[in-house]
Amino acid sequence: MSDSPPAPRPEARSPRGFSDRRGPDALAERRIVQALAPVYERWGFEPLETGAFEYADALGKFLPDADRPNEGVFALQDDDDQWMALRYDLTAPLARYAAQNWETLPKPFRRYAYGPVWRNEKPGPGRFREFWQCDADTVGSDRPEADAEIIAMALEGLDALGLGGGQAVIKIASRKLVNGVLQAAGVDGQAQTLTVLRAIDKLDRLGTEGVALLLGEGRLDESGDFTRGAGLGRPGIDAVLSFLSVPADGERGAVLSALDPIVGATPAGAEGLRDLQRIDQALKAFGVGASARFDPAVVRGLEYYTGAVFESELLADTRDDKGRPVRFGSIVGGGRYDGLVARFTGQEVPATGASFGVSRLAATLRAAGLDGAAAARGPVVVIVFTDEDMGAYLAAAAELRAAGVRAEVYMGRAGMKAQMKYADRRGAPAAVILGGDEIAAGQVTIKDLDAGRAAAAAVADHEAWKSQRPGQFTVSRDHLTAAVLKILE
Amino acid sequence: MSDSPPAPRPEARSPRGFSDRRGPDALAERRIVQALAPVYERWGFEPLETGAFEYADALGKFLPDADRPNEGVFALQDDDDQWMALRYDLTAPLARYAAQNWETLPKPFRRYAYGPVWRNEKPGPGRFREFWQCDADTVGSDRPEADAEIIAMALEGLDALGLGGGQAVIKIASRKLVNGVLQAAGVDGQAQTLTVLRAIDKLDRLGTEGVALLLGEGRLDESGDFTRGAGLGRPGIDAVLSFLSVPADGERGAVLSALDPIVGATPAGAEGLRDLQRIDQALKAFGVGASARFDPAVVRGLEYYTGAVFESELLADTRDDKGRPVRFGSIVGGGRYDGLVARFTGQEVPATGASFGVSRLAATLRAAGLDGAAAARGPVVVIVFTDEDMGAYLAAAAELRAAGVRAEVYMGRAGMKAQMKYADRRGAPAAVILGGDEIAAGQVTIKDLDAGRAAAAAVADHEAWKSQRPGQFTVSRDHLTAAVLKILE
Repeated sequence: MSDSPPAPRPEARSPRGFSDRRGPDALAERRIVQALAPVYERWGFEPLETGAFEYADALGKFLPDADRPNEGVFALQDDDDQWMALRYDLTAPLARYAAQNWETLPKPFRRYAYGPVWRNEKPGPGRFREFWQCDADTVGSDRPEADAEIIAMALEGLDALGLGGGQAVIKIASRKLVNGVLQAAGVDGQAQTLTVLRAIDKLDRLGTEGVALLLGEGRLDESGDFTRGAGLGRPGIDAVLSFLSVPADGERGAVLSALDPIVGATPAGAEGLRDLQRIDQALKAFGVGASARFDPAVVRGLEYYTGAVFESELLADTRDDKGRPVRFGSIVGGGRYDGLVARFTGQEVPATGASFGVSRLAATLRAAGLDGAAAARGPVVVIVFTDEDMGAYLAAAAELRAAGVRAEVYMGRAGMKAQMKYADRRGAPAAVILGGDEIAAGQVTIKDLDAGRAAAAAVADHEAWKSQRPGQFTVSRDHLTAAVLKILE
Repeated sequence: MSDSPPAPRPEARSPRGFSDRRGPDALAERRIVQALAPVYERWGFEPLETGAFEYADALGKFLPDADRPNEGVFALQDDDDQWMALRYDLTAPLARYAAQNWETLPKPFRRYAYGPVWRNEKPGPGRFREFWQCDADTVGSDRPEADAEIIAMALEGLDALGLGGGQAVIKIASRKLVNGVLQAAGVDGQAQTLTVLRAIDKLDRLGTEGVALLLGEGRLDESGDFTRGAGLGRPGIDAVLSFLSVPADGERGAVLSALDPIVGATPAGAEGLRDLQRIDQALKAFGVGASARFDPAVVRGLEYYTGAVFESELLADTRDDKGRPVRFGSIVGGGRYDGLVARFTGQEVPATGASFGVSRLAATLRAAGLDGAAAARGPVVVIVFTDEDMGAYLAAAAELRAAGVRAEVYMGRAGMKAQMKYADRRGAPAAVILGGDEIAAGQVTIKDLDAGRAAAAAVADHEAWKSQRPGQFTVSRDHLTAAVLKILE
């Protein structure tokens, strides 16, 4: 024996912001992407798998610096001193891949991808550092119809997830229209543009009055902090506010007509209106009606997107099992972007895409009891009495499996009572009992655990319950599989 | 405009040892786990998902040290200074999870898991730093029947992958039998035991003669290096060699009979034989015949496993498209292990499991042309002529998709010839042509690209080819979907 002291025992815990999921919960993300992937495939998008790591310089916006190499991403230095980082989304790897293989790809390049992404952020309740996305992008097409395709496909994806039939809509806006209203409002230069965009981006949180202040001189918040505004005059502020308040619940053509007097006279606005007209026509060709709306107040990621932008909104009233409303965050969103490939090649390549927030959706569906996980059943459990009869137990389970029934033999060393508890905790629909007497008589006893639970709830007297043994019956061994299949019906 | 120089362009490249895969190749791993997961489910195993990261101390054998914190794993320090590392297999996260949740888990705990694992090793041809595994383990059962179950399930998995019907066998051995022969050979103490195990482990590479030298005084290799041996005498060496050379091609019972005189008199050997007898009986109850064999020369991971060990061997003659034999590495292997949970809790918990090398299998199937990827077809491509008729193109594609046909409208700006080339590169079965004439006449022209390729190969004269336009025909627009479906038949 060695004289060195035993190594201290590590504590069994998972890193902060990473989750373990067992049973049906473990499959939630996979179920979602298995619903979305066939939709993407049907629209001609092909799968792309890239590695979890990218070189940090290729990821771009999260370049590591000497002080905080892990800012936003999980980064580490390779043997050759190059910094690599885990992907934080699926768009950056696409841009790298497209730039690397541009000459040999069929163009436009339609691809979909799904899987985990990682963000090195402060974890919290419901905020994880690893989560799944499911993206589809068209790289190399400047046609508005390519945007329309992505939008119609996202709606088909929502439908495949059980969120069709008017339960969700997609709201569409355009960065070009915003550029138009900036031109109409006399916004000038990068700094002022950025301040206006950031003011608009706060519409949800601050309302029109708050945004008006931020467009003008500035805003004093409750804590006493003053945010300097963009310095627009009254006409400029009014132009922006009238743009944002165009009613979005009408027909798509009506929204465009209402926007025309506000932005139609500017070059960017006119171009934006033309794009949205083409998107409207394409959506009509796809048979997409009121589930896709034009809404100028969608101001998501305006610093990032260059053309159409869109996001989903859930209209269905979803509640958890305690009747509390469950708020769905954005399930799917996207838009047209440029420059991602140009970062590598210098060549502008137009691109448009959508991203489903798979983990967020899974968590919400779970909270709302809409994920079907509760319906998932455990395996039939064959009870074990003696080592000698093990062959009979194993053969019974094998016979059930051959008939497509999930079945297992209890593999522990505990007694009958503990085994029944085990079967219960596994969500087993039935337990199969092959005691010595049953085997000798060519019979098998089957406990219908659902019926037993229901009957036990109905029978008040414990003695009566014991004598009746509800849900338990004995059949010829030949009829095992048929009897179990009947229970599973 | 800003005066600062533009940021230098990063080079578009993926980190060493990580691969990009497009189209059918991207789905190879997923196709494999989608075949295996239902088998695991049917046997009562439930899915478990854990995060990509574990705390480095929980991973155990690759503890980071001050000099080389990344030894073997991808490790980094969290904000709170704890070292975390990407999982290098799926067993270590299981051990951590089981230890963390032991009190509340149904026991024995049967789980399966799949996904990428990461190894920070020197990449090379066919050697990646990210690859997929697909594991099933039973934690908390010491029954040999639990081992038999894992083995029978692995065979069912091979069957589900198209490697059934005698194309693959599983060879089973036992660490306990090896302990028996160590006892019979008079091996004493940890150091000598380790030297003998490492000698046995070289059987594949050095043959019996080389192993005999390493069991005795030592071995001088070609480069002139001398490896000191275990120092066994002739009787000890003979015992080990006779153990390793027991013919393994016979019936399982016959192999046990042949092993009995060699190891049956030792306590460990007798226990090992009893275990294998029970495994044999259980396999019989599952209906598993000659596809599971006992073979004492299976010496995989003897330092790790504590009971039964097994690995698959492919018998089928697999060749790549140039007729060269393709060697399948171990597709699936596993065995019984202890101590993984005890590392955390101090409590010994018996466990047994199997791991499929999903990425290795995918790569080999690909090399052998057995992955069905070549059969995957691209989408039908609708050709684009004018912006005005875009609605007609989009509607045609939507109609095809509604009939379940993969279909897309070309979204680029190139001419007819380039679009046909695009359709060809996409593997499109057909191109749909809706020129102005066709639309005016209520017709559509369909190019059957497969038929066209075949006909073009048969028609020698280019002028004849042009006048005949093989594989191209015009139908009433109403018959578009029916005509395309006929091509896809």
